Amino acid sequence: MSTELSRVKALTFDVFGTVVDWRTSIIRDLEAFGRRKGIKADWAELTDDWRGAYRPTLNKVIKGEIAFQRLDDLHRGVLDGLLEKFGVKGLSEADKVHINKVWHRLHGWPDSVPGLTRLKRKYLVATLSNGNVALLTNMAKFAGLPWDCVLSAELFRHYKRDPEVYIGACDMLCLKRDEVMMVAAHKDDLQAARAQGMKTAYVERPGEYGPRPAPYPKLDFTADVEAKSLGELAEKLGA
Amino acid sequence: MSTELSRVKALTFDVFGTVVDWRTSIIRDLEAFGRRKGIKADWAELTDDWRGAYRPTLNKVIKGEIAFQRLDDLHRGVLDGLLEKFGVKGLSEADKVHINKVWHRLHGWPDSVPGLTRLKRKYLVATLSNGNVALLTNMAKFAGLPWDCVLSAELFRHYKRDPEVYIGACDMLCLKRDEVMMVAAHKDDLQAARAQGMKTAYVERPGEYGPRPAPYPKLDFTADVEAKSLGELAEKLGA
Repeated sequence: MSTELSRVKALTFDVFGTVVDWRTSIIRDLEAFGRRKGIKADWAELTDDWRGAYRPTLNKVIKGEIAFQRLDDLHRGVLDGLLEKFGVKGLSEADKVHINKVWHRLHGWPDSVPGLTRLKRKYLVATLSNGNVALLTNMAKFAGLPWDCVLSAELFRHYKRDPEVYIGACDMLCLKRDEVMMVAAHKDDLQAARAQGMKTAYVERPGEYGPRPAPYPKLDFTADVEAKSLGELAEKLGA
Repeated sequence: MSTELSRVKALTFDVFGTVVDWRTSIIRDLEAFGRRKGIKADWAELTDDWRGAYRPTLNKVIKGEIAFQRLDDLHRGVLDGLLEKFGVKGLSEADKVHINKVWHRLHGWPDSVPGLTRLKRKYLVATLSNGNVALLTNMAKFAGLPWDCVLSAELFRHYKRDPEVYIGACDMLCLKRDEVMMVAAHKDDLQAARAQGMKTAYVERPGEYGPRPAPYPKLDFTADVEAKSLGELAEKLGA
């Protein structure tokens, strides 16, 4: 490990895709829900459309077209439209809340819990996600993710890739920018972190989007560390 | 347990005094520091004076006499005066930073880690402290406190007993007020939480202030649950 990286004291993690496999988790959860309720629908397509609306919806907040709202509320707005589109009928309000909270019930990739547990011995490990605090905290309990603290776009009322999120997280941890390393499976997230002076670690998650192409720009960007799992990241960081 | 309390989903904890024994921890830490550096001083008196300045300093923020600053910075302002008062000389800036960060190096009461671990199985357990996020997170790593998330006055830019802190915490957890129980060793903290509709648990910590009287008002206030340890609290809550 380079001398420069030896200054790193905290790792902040993107969560959706980087730490948890949202796609498989949501499809399985909603298919099981559909079976329990006797509702047939293409839950996989609905899931992919739901996530497909994620960046465009956040971009409306980032561009100031709509006010900041927590991700749970943005998810719900999109969900209501998709339930109509996919012809899912007969749901109570409690059912809709339950479906919307599927984002609180995501499982880690197989290497996530052991990798984080190992990294936590050497570093402060925190989320730095667009998910709201309650979502991330409930997910951590559900999936057993051992965060030291839960940092969220909600705290800064800005979504990644706005610089306020990265700056705010380093400031809240009382660390210098180059003492904090952003960990993500999306290079534009890392590029935005590096622009604020943070260190970066890329974790490859080729299966994140299933059959659809990942909606992230292909960037000519090399992170300070690149790995195929959180275990390999721990190895490379000497944790 | 009453039906009313069965609605509780999250416990938010006061930390200084309720979960950690700040006084014993700081005196031991600073005495060890003094021996290493060859500095003689009445570290116990300095500790008691330092904590003694806590409420008056926070009250200046609460009354709007000074702007919100994180607790680390308020602690440092008081510390600088006390080092002079107690004739502690020859410290580098790094030494002063180290001393100020003693509030990040506090040990739990003997029942704190086992009690929280038990309560965490049934409830979301979070801090709700005047300590800043970095302080609480570093302390959790130091003392092994298994928080699900770290909530702090810093997030709301108000100090307890301002209502914004209690309201903000329930809102951030996406829970109704009566689904959240404030746990504290100080009844005025609980009274302020109840005024916002939260449930309350009192934990008796008679040793918190050592030989000095506790600087909290004696209130005719009975919490929803009262216990002598976090283990007893878990017992009473069926956790």
